[in-house]
Amino acid sequence: MSKDIIIIGAGLCGSLMALRLAQRGYHVRVYEKRPDMRKVSISAGRSINLALSDRGLRGLEMVGLKEEALQLVIPMMGRMVHPKNGDAQFFSYSGRKGECINSISRGGLNILLMDAAEATGRVKIHFETDCTDVNFETGEVFLQSLKDRTTFQDKAECILGTDGAGSAVRKSMMAISAALRFNFSQKYLDTGYKELCIPPSENGDFRIASNALHIWPRDGFMMIALPNLDRSFTVTLFMPFEGKYSFSGFRNEQDIHTFFENEFPDAYAHMPDLTEDFHANPTSSLGTIKCWPWQVNGRSALMGDAAHAVVPFYGQGMNASFEDCVVLDQCMDSYGDDWLRVLTQYQKLRKPNADAIADLAEDNFYEMRDATANPVFNLKRKIELELEQRYPDYYSKYSMVTFREDLDYAYAMHRGRWQDQILMDYASKTGDMTQVDFEAVFRLVSEFEK
Amino acid sequence: MSKDIIIIGAGLCGSLMALRLAQRGYHVRVYEKRPDMRKVSISAGRSINLALSDRGLRGLEMVGLKEEALQLVIPMMGRMVHPKNGDAQFFSYSGRKGECINSISRGGLNILLMDAAEATGRVKIHFETDCTDVNFETGEVFLQSLKDRTTFQDKAECILGTDGAGSAVRKSMMAISAALRFNFSQKYLDTGYKELCIPPSENGDFRIASNALHIWPRDGFMMIALPNLDRSFTVTLFMPFEGKYSFSGFRNEQDIHTFFENEFPDAYAHMPDLTEDFHANPTSSLGTIKCWPWQVNGRSALMGDAAHAVVPFYGQGMNASFEDCVVLDQCMDSYGDDWLRVLTQYQKLRKPNADAIADLAEDNFYEMRDATANPVFNLKRKIELELEQRYPDYYSKYSMVTFREDLDYAYAMHRGRWQDQILMDYASKTGDMTQVDFEAVFRLVSEFEK
Repeated sequence: MSKDIIIIGAGLCGSLMALRLAQRGYHVRVYEKRPDMRKVSISAGRSINLALSDRGLRGLEMVGLKEEALQLVIPMMGRMVHPKNGDAQFFSYSGRKGECINSISRGGLNILLMDAAEATGRVKIHFETDCTDVNFETGEVFLQSLKDRTTFQDKAECILGTDGAGSAVRKSMMAISAALRFNFSQKYLDTGYKELCIPPSENGDFRIASNALHIWPRDGFMMIALPNLDRSFTVTLFMPFEGKYSFSGFRNEQDIHTFFENEFPDAYAHMPDLTEDFHANPTSSLGTIKCWPWQVNGRSALMGDAAHAVVPFYGQGMNASFEDCVVLDQCMDSYGDDWLRVLTQYQKLRKPNADAIADLAEDNFYEMRDATANPVFNLKRKIELELEQRYPDYYSKYSMVTFREDLDYAYAMHRGRWQDQILMDYASKTGDMTQVDFEAVFRLVSEFEK
Repeated sequence: MSKDIIIIGAGLCGSLMALRLAQRGYHVRVYEKRPDMRKVSISAGRSINLALSDRGLRGLEMVGLKEEALQLVIPMMGRMVHPKNGDAQFFSYSGRKGECINSISRGGLNILLMDAAEATGRVKIHFETDCTDVNFETGEVFLQSLKDRTTFQDKAECILGTDGAGSAVRKSMMAISAALRFNFSQKYLDTGYKELCIPPSENGDFRIASNALHIWPRDGFMMIALPNLDRSFTVTLFMPFEGKYSFSGFRNEQDIHTFFENEFPDAYAHMPDLTEDFHANPTSSLGTIKCWPWQVNGRSALMGDAAHAVVPFYGQGMNASFEDCVVLDQCMDSYGDDWLRVLTQYQKLRKPNADAIADLAEDNFYEMRDATANPVFNLKRKIELELEQRYPDYYSKYSMVTFREDLDYAYAMHRGRWQDQILMDYASKTGDMTQVDFEAVFRLVSEFEK
């Protein structure tokens, strides 16, 4: 049996999987459409930095790179919520010490993974090479060099599609939809995003608190900022495409300045390159992709965004993709390279969890945009953090998703939504923290039965 | 302003729309992938005969072809339900006289429409011509002759995509998904279908009752039959692809005979060509397609299956497509050829109704397969038919969808589901028809408020 594997896409998920398979002794040929980011400066396809949390760290631990990756991060202990007028307020992500999420550069992490994969001697990454089709009967992959337009083929027992939301491998499945009964959906938000920047201060420091994910919730739009190692922040404005406050509403530079000055006065003071960034960076759309099946004939499977692109509001996109790799690896523990069993088991285990994180991420968009400005919601969050401090066994929905890599996303969603309902009800009937009977609340939220 | 229009697809919807636009004075160029069915015998892409009901007839009336079309039909007054052992039972579609649905040949109706369209002198249908792409900025359509592979372009103010479930126009929208924020879903049933035949008897008569849609409901699968003008019936077996009773379960000819003899003994006796048909005809899949938006830049819009492919279980696919044409025509009454306003209004009016009939059609699959064998359901249907006879203002869900072309599908769905719930509750608590208090039931079902 051939010990060769083809991976389409050398992004985070593809690079991690290539490395793991190499560690298992496979020879892996990776085809990547973009140029090598270690040689050519390329604009990030999507967000420049990402939130790395426990599920993602578990994936890095699997390949022995957890500690190295943690050298590249800036821990964020909670959300710093910036009201329009008044003082920012900090909400810890957890009532337990040490539970945080980590801001990390997409490019930096990707390079770490590619370097480690190539260092095994068993992974060859072919850049600027487009996958044009996959034959799921024969295992042939049809490729085209983007440098000289020559076409060629490759072939392997197993072909993994880690080629992102616009996956070519998935398109090859779509092309034989009726035969596969390939269910597929793509759904866009009416809100888009634009990346901006808060650079380091003149003496090279962070301009705002570094160990937090900053949020400026507003009515119908919001802005967030994540810290970078160079002491800048990547700022992202999320806003509807159309309507009163929308990307289509900016007619000139003055409109941009007026808007930021009025809506985000504290951030505006730290954004000297606002209009340049605003014009230079694209306005991008946000969507959720779901599909089924993920595997065909035991020949090929989708992983990461190719199988389940999610909106970024739970900070779980990369973490979910890394969890795909961990689960596929476990399936190989069970079934070796009986690929039909491996890939069938993999998709069965992952699909409900991918659906759950997709739905949670959409929910969190509304929570971040609207609820973080709502006093009842904020009281509920305070009650919940106090619960986490008093009762180490209590985990909020956010904590289950983010810090409990031993729990499925689907379980975290069901239990978390149930808890949220109870706590929001309780908070709406309670004036402030002094009136909370924590023993009683803890009993209420402990009654969950799967 | 140009008075030219391009239509992609000369099926039922495209031919009707081409005819209507010609009647309005437009010159229409239609591009159709398949050969001309009037010259070449081609296997029907999908079902051979269809149920034409009031919404479809309204479309034909719009172009003055209602009476001609009615010459081609065989009226079906209700469902003839065939139990496994025992006598078939007839359930009228309506308690009102004259309300029926009509079995019509897909090919016969399509030819009627194409002939009438060409007879206007303003419609030119180009067969065996594939649409490869649409530029929604410029209105250019990229085409390829399937006869000699030559490629060419055409251009018009307005391009209508009536090219069915696998629409090329929709694929061109998909290709610019992010820019359009093009929402799309395709969802397959686990059940597929195969067309079979009950030929005329040796003396040229119908072998089973001609004025009914025959149903053989079974546990997990079913068969139906619709009459044809030549006194044959087109029979369709709906069955899961996998599992105990499934298309994958037939290993040889004996399996086929045994299955039909056991499950459909009364039909089996009339199917002399069973195994030939079974091998010759494909096993096809069934799916629902939804998308949004349907129009781009006031340049192009999707109609019929291209916009909203539905499963066939409500017999409304063609009827819904013809209703699209009627609504587009009404929008042109309002806005002339201000295409942006016409197409925007058209999609706004049609989308909720297309979603409704898609959902109703899926529901009806389960009703036909499972519920028609359920005594409570059959009592409920009898109560409902009696209600329709006693109270001319009462319309069942089926009647609203099928006979009330003045009501939206969305309204019919909401009100119909509400009525069904009440009547199923009532039937489950009532032993038989003698115990029904019709005055009381009528009051219950009259309380619906939109």
